[in-house]
Amino acid sequence: MVRPGRMRRAGRLTTAHWQRVRPVAAVGTRVLPPARLEAFSDGVFAIAITLLVIELHVPTSKEALVAGLVHEWPRYLGYLVSFAFIGGVWISHSKLTRFIRVVDAPLMRLNLLLLLSVSILPFTTGVVANHLFESYLTVSHDISTSFGAERIAVVLFGVDLSLAAFMLYLLIRHAARTSGIAVDDVAEEELQRFTVERRLAFVAQACATVVGAFLPVLAVLFYLSVSVLFIVAPLTATRWRTAQTGDS
Amino acid sequence: MVRPGRMRRAGRLTTAHWQRVRPVAAVGTRVLPPARLEAFSDGVFAIAITLLVIELHVPTSKEALVAGLVHEWPRYLGYLVSFAFIGGVWISHSKLTRFIRVVDAPLMRLNLLLLLSVSILPFTTGVVANHLFESYLTVSHDISTSFGAERIAVVLFGVDLSLAAFMLYLLIRHAARTSGIAVDDVAEEELQRFTVERRLAFVAQACATVVGAFLPVLAVLFYLSVSVLFIVAPLTATRWRTAQTGDS
Amino acid sequence: MVRPGRMRRAGRLTTAHWQRVRPVAAVGTRVLPPARLEAFSDGVFAIAITLLVIELHVPTSKEALVAGLVHEWPRYLGYLVSFAFIGGVWISHSKLTRFIRVVDAPLMRLNLLLLLSVSILPFTTGVVANHLFESYLTVSHDISTSFGAERIAVVLFGVDLSLAAFMLYLLIRHAARTSGIAVDDVAEEELQRFTVERRLAFVAQACATVVGAFLPVLAVLFYLSVSVLFIVAPLTATRWRTAQTGDS
Amino acid sequence: MVRPGRMRRAGRLTTAHWQRVRPVAAVGTRVLPPARLEAFSDGVFAIAITLLVIELHVPTSKEALVAGLVHEWPRYLGYLVSFAFIGGVWISHSKLTRFIRVVDAPLMRLNLLLLLSVSILPFTTGVVANHLFESYLTVSHDISTSFGAERIAVVLFGVDLSLAAFMLYLLIRHAARTSGIAVDDVAEEELQRFTVERRLAFVAQACATVVGAFLPVLAVLFYLSVSVLFIVAPLTATRWRTAQTGDS
Repeated sequence: MVRPGRMRRAGRLTTAHWQRVRPVAAVGTRVLPPARLEAFSDGVFAIAITLLVIELHVPTSKEALVAGLVHEWPRYLGYLVSFAFIGGVWISHSKLTRFIRVVDAPLMRLNLLLLLSVSILPFTTGVVANHLFESYLTVSHDISTSFGAERIAVVLFGVDLSLAAFMLYLLIRHAARTSGIAVDDVAEEELQRFTVERRLAFVAQACATVVGAFLPVLAVLFYLSVSVLFIVAPLTATRWRTAQTGDS
Repeated sequence: MVRPGRMRRAGRLTTAHWQRVRPVAAVGTRVLPPARLEAFSDGVFAIAITLLVIELHVPTSKEALVAGLVHEWPRYLGYLVSFAFIGGVWISHSKLTRFIRVVDAPLMRLNLLLLLSVSILPFTTGVVANHLFESYLTVSHDISTSFGAERIAVVLFGVDLSLAAFMLYLLIRHAARTSGIAVDDVAEEELQRFTVERRLAFVAQACATVVGAFLPVLAVLFYLSVSVLFIVAPLTATRWRTAQTGDS
Repeated sequence: MVRPGRMRRAGRLTTAHWQRVRPVAAVGTRVLPPARLEAFSDGVFAIAITLLVIELHVPTSKEALVAGLVHEWPRYLGYLVSFAFIGGVWISHSKLTRFIRVVDAPLMRLNLLLLLSVSILPFTTGVVANHLFESYLTVSHDISTSFGAERIAVVLFGVDLSLAAFMLYLLIRHAARTSGIAVDDVAEEELQRFTVERRLAFVAQACATVVGAFLPVLAVLFYLSVSVLFIVAPLTATRWRTAQTGDS
Repeated sequence: MVRPGRMRRAGRLTTAHWQRVRPVAAVGTRVLPPARLEAFSDGVFAIAITLLVIELHVPTSKEALVAGLVHEWPRYLGYLVSFAFIGGVWISHSKLTRFIRVVDAPLMRLNLLLLLSVSILPFTTGVVANHLFESYLTVSHDISTSFGAERIAVVLFGVDLSLAAFMLYLLIRHAARTSGIAVDDVAEEELQRFTVERRLAFVAQACATVVGAFLPVLAVLFYLSVSVLFIVAPLTATRWRTAQTGDS
């Protein structure tokens, strides 16, 4: 059912392929091959995911090492959640670029907005890590609807995650709907399925953020569960059965 | 109208192409393929754009969260402007490398000077973010021509942006004027049109910097408008009509 | 004995190769070409190895320069060990990706867990560098089995190194055992040999961590020796005899 | 005089090329294609060159902006010198990888040692920037041979630059001398010429470091002049005359 051309992106577009699709001269300066978008995005994802470590503080006084490390647990939690989230965005982004052959101006901008929301994550993670502990101490005694610092922090974090999820959705939708971006028809169908999947992910993220305004700890537990599941689930699933056939 | 060779860069130069253009032995060690220039520049752009987040400070005391976040607004503004600016430089740089097939020694140096002015942006953004608020408070009462800290900060920021715009212009002009750098004649014409476009962008940037010396807030509003327009305009424009024809 | 296909990854998979192996449609969205996994991982490794420098503090007072530099020696030691360790992980990772042609979902996750344990190294290195000096002062007088800060620090560092070694082992084992991931049969055999090698490396790392709980300085000396050997041994070994024959 | 094969690296090694050179099975796991070495090195160079900006401090108090910026001049100087130095190392590294087709174990280690000396530059630049100003104030009054903090700082900086220059020399020498690494005979000759060039550069660097022990300001002026010349000289030189001939 899958046509050979479907896999072409993986092996880099060849000159022959470019000649065959014949983009007209008028759009020549407005579309670009995806190679540099991939490289730049990989750079931003890699730096954002590694900069998260800067928020982890090294306890310096001798006696306080264990206490200091234990006291930092909301930072480790935030680190894990954001690390898994950026990892997930990166995997989705890799799936996207596999199916496209050119990048147009709106796709460039949507991608920049996605990178903006991802590269600000070390900051919003820092905010939530600084204020989650307070929430943790008080939420069991008094679940009120008044907005304390912990709720604002969790909502800010959730809004950032939701914004990234939304941009990823718009990015994939744009690629799916704009003819000439997908490698071929099969890739276009894949992108359409992927659009639906990402819309659901965005809605779930947005709902968790709304919940976080009232029950901040619940929202954080949701983020954490999703992160753990996202990493662990494919590892416990049955192995991918090889598709390789023939004598090779 | 567009010749097949025009799109060749996108699909990576092939061995056959290199053999056909026959650079003479004398220049052999002085020209390089653009692959590593792209990778290194993508790295610097990605790091500079992500390092901007380090200037955003996480408020730590509980009561001060909302007040602390609100108080930081000039930093968010600076973050947005610089993020959009680096994003714009990166897009222009991607357009440039699409049309070239080799990199010579002057192009390497001009590129390094561009990267210098971009990688110093987290610093100049920090300076303007620290001093814009003061300007914001005082400018409405007393628009004098005396040079306060806020003006110096805005001018410093503007000079950095102008320097980057100037280097980008020189880079593209060099590629357009030096024979043997462009992939072919069509690419050379594209680079010449692009040179004119970037000269205008540089002049606008330089004018805003001069204005910033007298009306710092106006200059910052200009930078912000350009950033927002740069991101939003292509998203609202009519969709790119596919150039793909035939049965492929 | 080596088949031509073995070297194919090095020259990038070609379209023809992709068509020949024919992955079925069902797994189409679940496997990806390794190009972006390589780029993203290279980014994280490069940033983690370079961020280590942030833990080195610049002495600022005039008189204290020499004393300040000398006093920092545990940081330099930690820097060297972690730099060599990340360098080693990167070399192993390069060997792995040379032999694979696709990346599936579990491999993506195992790779993320490897990157997690590597990108947290600037933090665990900081912890051990802050507490090793104390150990150095006291261990000669009183080798007790009570757990002081220095032991906890060394164990934390060792657990991080062991976790990275374990993930690298699982990653390579997964690639070796899952049919369809290796480029061909010869590559699969290489990956199986490599799996055995990495299992040994992980066991050695885990043992050193256990030793570090009782004799922290000994564990650090072990880490340091391994690092130095890893860098120096190949440099003093006899040169690689060229495999290039004939007039080609 | 130049053979077509000489330019082959630029267009990525093809499968056909790999089959033709026939590395024997025994060295199969010990040599790697240079693609990931390039990507990882580009990442480290890009991060080290961009991290230099972290040493530039943003003056925060209103009155002190101009004074604060002026007071920071040794940091700007250090920034410029180190930026140009890393840029130069990167250009040399690009020239090297253009001429090689495989990477063996010693080359991997020499490259790691080069990256080590480059990635520590933000630290040694910080040391020299903190202590150059003191030297600047006192050297005109009392050029003694006693070793003050400023001399130690300049020597530390110089030793780091010399180490990087030495590693670059060893790296290129190894590639030139080990048969099977260069793309072909012409590339090997180029690498031999390049080895001689880099040996001279290392000797000059080492001499400047020795001078720096006695006349720190002179050494810094030398570093600065070399940096400026390195960037400016190719820009003022006569334009590269195109090597493109024929009808293309």
